[in-house]
Amino acid sequence: MHKLLIVSRHADAYRRLIDAARLPALELRSASDPAEAAAHGSDCDMVLGEPSLIRPILPRLGALAWAQATWAGVEPLVDPALRRDYILTNARGVFGPLMSEYVFGYLLAHERKILDKFAAQQQGRWDPTPPGTLRGRQLGLLGVGSIGAALARTAKHFEMRVKGYTRASETCRDVDVYFHGDDRRPFAADLDYLVAVMPNTAATRHIVDAALLQALPARAVFVNPGRGSVVDEPALAGALREGRLAAAVLDVFEQEPLPSDHVLWRTPNVLITSHTAALSAPEDIAPVFVDNYRRFVRGEPLKYRVDFDRGY
Amino acid sequence: MHKLLIVSRHADAYRRLIDAARLPALELRSASDPAEAAAHGSDCDMVLGEPSLIRPILPRLGALAWAQATWAGVEPLVDPALRRDYILTNARGVFGPLMSEYVFGYLLAHERKILDKFAAQQQGRWDPTPPGTLRGRQLGLLGVGSIGAALARTAKHFEMRVKGYTRASETCRDVDVYFHGDDRRPFAADLDYLVAVMPNTAATRHIVDAALLQALPARAVFVNPGRGSVVDEPALAGALREGRLAAAVLDVFEQEPLPSDHVLWRTPNVLITSHTAALSAPEDIAPVFVDNYRRFVRGEPLKYRVDFDRGY
Repeated sequence: MHKLLIVSRHADAYRRLIDAARLPALELRSASDPAEAAAHGSDCDMVLGEPSLIRPILPRLGALAWAQATWAGVEPLVDPALRRDYILTNARGVFGPLMSEYVFGYLLAHERKILDKFAAQQQGRWDPTPPGTLRGRQLGLLGVGSIGAALARTAKHFEMRVKGYTRASETCRDVDVYFHGDDRRPFAADLDYLVAVMPNTAATRHIVDAALLQALPARAVFVNPGRGSVVDEPALAGALREGRLAAAVLDVFEQEPLPSDHVLWRTPNVLITSHTAALSAPEDIAPVFVDNYRRFVRGEPLKYRVDFDRGY
Repeated sequence: MHKLLIVSRHADAYRRLIDAARLPALELRSASDPAEAAAHGSDCDMVLGEPSLIRPILPRLGALAWAQATWAGVEPLVDPALRRDYILTNARGVFGPLMSEYVFGYLLAHERKILDKFAAQQQGRWDPTPPGTLRGRQLGLLGVGSIGAALARTAKHFEMRVKGYTRASETCRDVDVYFHGDDRRPFAADLDYLVAVMPNTAATRHIVDAALLQALPARAVFVNPGRGSVVDEPALAGALREGRLAAAVLDVFEQEPLPSDHVLWRTPNVLITSHTAALSAPEDIAPVFVDNYRRFVRGEPLKYRVDFDRGY
């Protein structure tokens, strides 16, 4: 008999969804906060939940064999100070479509001048300004994992050209041309849109820095639905203030919620979306756990296993 | 030797693009207004241009065999009072991608609450309100020609369900279920989005009337990038004012520019885009003419021939 501890703000929904899957030899405990979880679940060999809620109870889970994170980002759990004597899997393959809706919602809003048209309408003004089109525009993806691949596929639907910057992989066929390592400048040189979808690791920290922003054309729009840590925020604010970048659409920040005195609230041509680009829906994540549970009991490798050293 | 008269606001661009195609046995005349066109081109057997500019010179074109319209809508030329002793072709197959960018730009803006998020940001407010998603939503297409088919394809990319209302055709495979004739109410019953992409004909006039609007759920959003004549505007304004419809995105109107005292400027939850959804770009339309010219000289049937009685 396996014992699963669910520790999540959506504990009830996860419990209902996992109950409905009628998994064999599984006992469920659930809690919506770490204190309650630690009290009820210290003998559990499996845990499912938000990485930030799992982290404080890690030392209490004496029998832990496997943790399934409900997020893509598992920073709270890969801290070298923490134990690594269990299998950690994250949520992957479920955020691509949501991220695609977020990114292309804002790309299309930019091309179609949705905010400008709305402002004209507020003034009762018929505004025949021609819109732009995504067709033929260059999209640069910083990171081409499962989310980047979903974005590339949507970009191709809209007949864009896609450049990809990755550590080494070149597996996504919707990317027209790949860049790696020191090639950040040629990668950025002729982009209309730069989208950062990299995990938060030591290697990606501030990869969007003054040099990369300098390499972008002034017409470019930067979109960050990924991790705040990849951006040098003062450098970004400077580029926008000086008109060296057309706009930035920011879902994530080094500090969240973004402090009320932060310069980005007052930087021109910034759109702030308050970390809502791709929320973890229990309906999407529960099936990841269910599939992995079946693999676990069959002794098969789990999907989306995190490499603690790499950080994703 | 054929003689082509170009009469268009973009006459110079069309002339350059058609020159570049080096078509055999073709002499070009061009003008940006009808008076000049009539003066120079009365002996031409072909005309290319905006239907509204071709209309006034129709009686002067004694040798006219073929007219290629640069618009999809050819209302000015299918008036029964006008001559019909020539082949009329319109622009089709080129507006689908642009229409798709327009429609899905606004569908995604609605789901992602782009205007609400922007308003929150103006107040310096971190707004974690969860967005919606297109996935699983129901899109209803009033009209499934080449533009409707392009919209259906994009809808499938975003994993929507697609209902189509047509006169009779059921050829688009991205439409899940078709409706015809008196089936407007079951067609409308469970839609999240209703998009009208029908031509302006006697049969489509005010097809979006009080009864159809009443059949839509209150959560529905109506998008009209097609023709203003398909909408009963007072009925639409009433439905919005009474909250029986969530929003309307309107590119076209019975009278354009929309008069400054028109009720739709002051109706809640209306977005007005001033007839810019899919502008005819010479780069897109010139190839339609070039392809049809080659067919013409080979004696083959032309593409996109208009049925004068049907009106499209």
